[in-house]
Amino acid sequence: MFSSLRGRARRFISYSFLVGHRRGRGISNHKESYNRQWNNRSECSSGGHSHRTHYFVLGLTALSATFGGSCVLYAYTSPNSSSSLIDSGKRSEGVDKKKRILLLGSGWAGVSFLKSLDSTQYDVHVVSPRNFFVFTPLLPSVTAGTVEARSITESIRKIVLKKENVKFSQANCTGIDTANKKVLCRPVADHLDLGKNDFEVEYDYLIIAVGAQANTFNTPGVEKYCHFLKEIEDAEKIRESIVDCFELAALPNLSKDERSQLLHFVIVGGGPTGVEFAAELHDLVYEDLCKLYPTLMPFVNIVVIQSGDHILNTFDERISQFAEQKFQRDGIELKTGCRVLEVQKNRIVMREKGTGKKVEVPYGMVVWSTGIGTRPVIAEFMNQIGQHDRRALATDEWLRVKGCPNTYALGDCATIEQRKLLEDVAYIFALADKDNSGNLTAIEFKEAFESIRERYPQIDIYLKTQRMKDVLKILDDPKDSVLLDIEQFKSSLVKVDAQMKALPATAQVAAQQGEYLARCFNRWSVCESKPEGPLRVRGDGRHMFHPFVYKHFGQFAPLGGEQAAAELPGDWISVGRSTQWLWYSVYASKQVSWRTRALVIFDWSKRFLFGRDASRM
Amino acid sequence: MFSSLRGRARRFISYSFLVGHRRGRGISNHKESYNRQWNNRSECSSGGHSHRTHYFVLGLTALSATFGGSCVLYAYTSPNSSSSLIDSGKRSEGVDKKKRILLLGSGWAGVSFLKSLDSTQYDVHVVSPRNFFVFTPLLPSVTAGTVEARSITESIRKIVLKKENVKFSQANCTGIDTANKKVLCRPVADHLDLGKNDFEVEYDYLIIAVGAQANTFNTPGVEKYCHFLKEIEDAEKIRESIVDCFELAALPNLSKDERSQLLHFVIVGGGPTGVEFAAELHDLVYEDLCKLYPTLMPFVNIVVIQSGDHILNTFDERISQFAEQKFQRDGIELKTGCRVLEVQKNRIVMREKGTGKKVEVPYGMVVWSTGIGTRPVIAEFMNQIGQHDRRALATDEWLRVKGCPNTYALGDCATIEQRKLLEDVAYIFALADKDNSGNLTAIEFKEAFESIRERYPQIDIYLKTQRMKDVLKILDDPKDSVLLDIEQFKSSLVKVDAQMKALPATAQVAAQQGEYLARCFNRWSVCESKPEGPLRVRGDGRHMFHPFVYKHFGQFAPLGGEQAAAELPGDWISVGRSTQWLWYSVYASKQVSWRTRALVIFDWSKRFLFGRDASRM
Repeated sequence: MFSSLRGRARRFISYSFLVGHRRGRGISNHKESYNRQWNNRSECSSGGHSHRTHYFVLGLTALSATFGGSCVLYAYTSPNSSSSLIDSGKRSEGVDKKKRILLLGSGWAGVSFLKSLDSTQYDVHVVSPRNFFVFTPLLPSVTAGTVEARSITESIRKIVLKKENVKFSQANCTGIDTANKKVLCRPVADHLDLGKNDFEVEYDYLIIAVGAQANTFNTPGVEKYCHFLKEIEDAEKIRESIVDCFELAALPNLSKDERSQLLHFVIVGGGPTGVEFAAELHDLVYEDLCKLYPTLMPFVNIVVIQSGDHILNTFDERISQFAEQKFQRDGIELKTGCRVLEVQKNRIVMREKGTGKKVEVPYGMVVWSTGIGTRPVIAEFMNQIGQHDRRALATDEWLRVKGCPNTYALGDCATIEQRKLLEDVAYIFALADKDNSGNLTAIEFKEAFESIRERYPQIDIYLKTQRMKDVLKILDDPKDSVLLDIEQFKSSLVKVDAQMKALPATAQVAAQQGEYLARCFNRWSVCESKPEGPLRVRGDGRHMFHPFVYKHFGQFAPLGGEQAAAELPGDWISVGRSTQWLWYSVYASKQVSWRTRALVIFDWSKRFLFGRDASRM
Repeated sequence: MFSSLRGRARRFISYSFLVGHRRGRGISNHKESYNRQWNNRSECSSGGHSHRTHYFVLGLTALSATFGGSCVLYAYTSPNSSSSLIDSGKRSEGVDKKKRILLLGSGWAGVSFLKSLDSTQYDVHVVSPRNFFVFTPLLPSVTAGTVEARSITESIRKIVLKKENVKFSQANCTGIDTANKKVLCRPVADHLDLGKNDFEVEYDYLIIAVGAQANTFNTPGVEKYCHFLKEIEDAEKIRESIVDCFELAALPNLSKDERSQLLHFVIVGGGPTGVEFAAELHDLVYEDLCKLYPTLMPFVNIVVIQSGDHILNTFDERISQFAEQKFQRDGIELKTGCRVLEVQKNRIVMREKGTGKKVEVPYGMVVWSTGIGTRPVIAEFMNQIGQHDRRALATDEWLRVKGCPNTYALGDCATIEQRKLLEDVAYIFALADKDNSGNLTAIEFKEAFESIRERYPQIDIYLKTQRMKDVLKILDDPKDSVLLDIEQFKSSLVKVDAQMKALPATAQVAAQQGEYLARCFNRWSVCESKPEGPLRVRGDGRHMFHPFVYKHFGQFAPLGGEQAAAELPGDWISVGRSTQWLWYSVYASKQVSWRTRALVIFDWSKRFLFGRDASRM
């Protein structure tokens, strides 16, 4: 931190010297002064150097944290900025013959890939409609003004700055042409018709990390009347809308009914996002707005609608129970077991699962957070490649899009289709049965087992169950005496595939995938000659890389009023204020840059000192 | 500061206790939990108390500063927040029979009035489309991200919180009916048709402080293609637009011409705002964007178009000279003596005054800052009251709108029409000539002089000129022997009215007017019985109040690159880095609250450590 300061300070001093110098020299043109800036900047590159050690320290901090996505941090140990800077200018013209990687998206998956990638080996082009990365886990805090929008975003160009051979274009991907290895892009801002034309980008490897969008389940009225909570703009709109509701309700000419309708806040979806938003809204209202609008407080009502029987039902039930009790104490109304049929202007129509009868709820504002859906460009692409009617792109365990060579997909826009073991059982048997005796000796089995286990991770889960105890025994002390024919082998594995689970659509998964894929690309030339992956079950030799394995580091559920709940590794559960402080420290350590880290911590302190701002802007 | 922290800390602790307590009690409804918040808040009122001393210290700091508008600070020494809080809730229903003040606007004039007003004597209703105050002198810094928008805004409700009997409505004033003492208001946000109806507000005294809007001088295309720099939204749009220009210019499929057009930034108007924006833009580009878009720097061009022969021509010419040299060194192009005829898409058409020939300048972005114009509601009101074809509402020296009883106007929407001395010279003579001898003895003259001087401040300026030397001599040692008849009297004053000047449309003037008017309202009951003003020239007795007198505390012109210029009291001129630091300290001390002060200082340090953020949002 301090040497980062030192770096800047030096730059500042060199700059002041510069100004004095300029004044001495008198008149000159701005190109010159720009060049001076250059010298000036390269002077401070040592500041850039010294960054590294600090990011390493940070890396350790992050490792020690209980939550995933650490990759976001290591990438900082990258070539020093000022040299890469000029390169990114020169080389990005693409004069040399490096393989071209095209990365779509600047979210968790994309940025952690970009940061972990050794970009000296490739020519990288990043295309995203946003020229910044958003620390999405803090989006709900932005809706209430607990942190500011810019405190959780980092410019992609600042990240690119630290890499070589990387260029960025702020554009939407409108079409993917895998046959000709091209992607069609459309600029985001149409600025007085300047630079409004679509353009194509060619690639050798395409990496799709465009994320997902809110899922309305085609419920009528949702698009028109509801707020979503996926993008930074959504969060800012919600913040504005909350203040609007209060300001309107405070007008002199309103009836009591109008006031209470305006201050009826509804959240559809009791998942982590919905619950965290409800908690943030409650804190905003009862810690800050209550002072600014004292006469309105009796009219305020916060409701969470959940189709399931409990909120946070992806968490351990002790957590969802704690959350429900906390909300009940806070007066946040829970409508569980309710399915929203339609959102009309000013009212939500839903059916109570239990009684089956229709219920109407009036509202002043609705936030819709019920899981994720497919982005149009991905839906279209899936049709092209014959992956119809899916929620996300199907990839194999190496994140390669099925049926598309040189195309990778990661993050919320993709799901890994775990290979079924039973489909391959004959091949596996053949692979293990080296002497083709038709019988598998324990020793043969053990030799092949590591590869099988890596290729079919569902086995690992299965191993812990009773059913495989004997297998474990065999593996501990293999004897040729023990024989297994294919039928016994099959029967012992028959329930394995039931253990397969799709990965959750979280920042943690996306970040790990990005880092994994970057590592593969970094080791490409090495692994081409020396494959490091498991034995091929169908075909000879080994796979080039190890398949992707997800490590779950646990998850948090902040519940407001300085209370939080957390699932920690090893089925540990932690709730209460201490957990909230753990949350603070982990989220601070997870920030993508020193800048956002400082800003987020400052915002937290600011809220503690001055409360949240309720200006309508 | 610390005790403000202590206050909050205490609140925080009491809150934590609360939570524990709640958990103990188990379930309760949200009204209860809301009441608890109450007790909890009143617990920390002592924190509120201890604020005062600090605001007082601050008051002193502010006094010691060289710049006006200090009123903004004193108002903080007001009844402690938590009690006034509940009052503002109860009394704002308006049960008692106090005189009703309706204040339109929440800018410098309005807020400094509100803060200085002893609101216990009145029922105050503030109506403004913005529920926050903007520290406008820092708007140009927001365009470049040197400070964040929320760092220079303070919620009006937070200010109201510290006063009694004040309520606020976020609405536009759409019509003024002075006959029935009513104002028609329209809510700003139309939220799903809730609370969208217009409403009326009745008053006993109307205070108009709605400010002004940008003046296009009816130049074609300005409304359509130009950015203005009056409101906080303008500043944010400009910031977004700058990044758009760079991101578009960075796209791969653009020609060199398109790039240089996109990066051609034009500022129309070489006044303080335009110049400060140009400086901020230059710093943003050459300190930060140059690193993010290195290949684009040769295409960047910043141009300031000024109709006069020099920029900053309201300042001392040494300052405008310094500014022009600084800009030349920085490569900011100055086109002086150019009148803009039309703004077309992508190009500005203008006429060079010298040569008289038409010139066209291409642009990627234009910011139009050429002085202020009248808001529609004020224009309409001026027509109602027979003040046609004026730029602003005409008031007398007591800020009373001419021809409108109980109506006051201040700030940018009003101008004081200074009374001409020569029109009243006969009356003045009669007033002074107590014995109606037709001749004025020096003693008689001296007796009346103080009132005359106060009523016609132009005399003060005139006194310093040669012409009045003899008068001064007379006043120093008055003798009955010296006689002056009316003709001599006239002739000695004949050039006085030439000294009259309209006040500039600055925050400084508006703030002083607000404070002045509040002081009048605070002393109303006292001065009704004991008028404190000057002798009436036409009519008997004294005026109720002293007329408004503007004190000029100097002005700043920040020029970028840590350089600034300043006009200080006593015709002092200061330029360079030291002046920039003076600027920092003064602007920090001038902030309306500890919150904005802390935020602005943090933003400045943030910029120094991490540079400006270039995320497009």
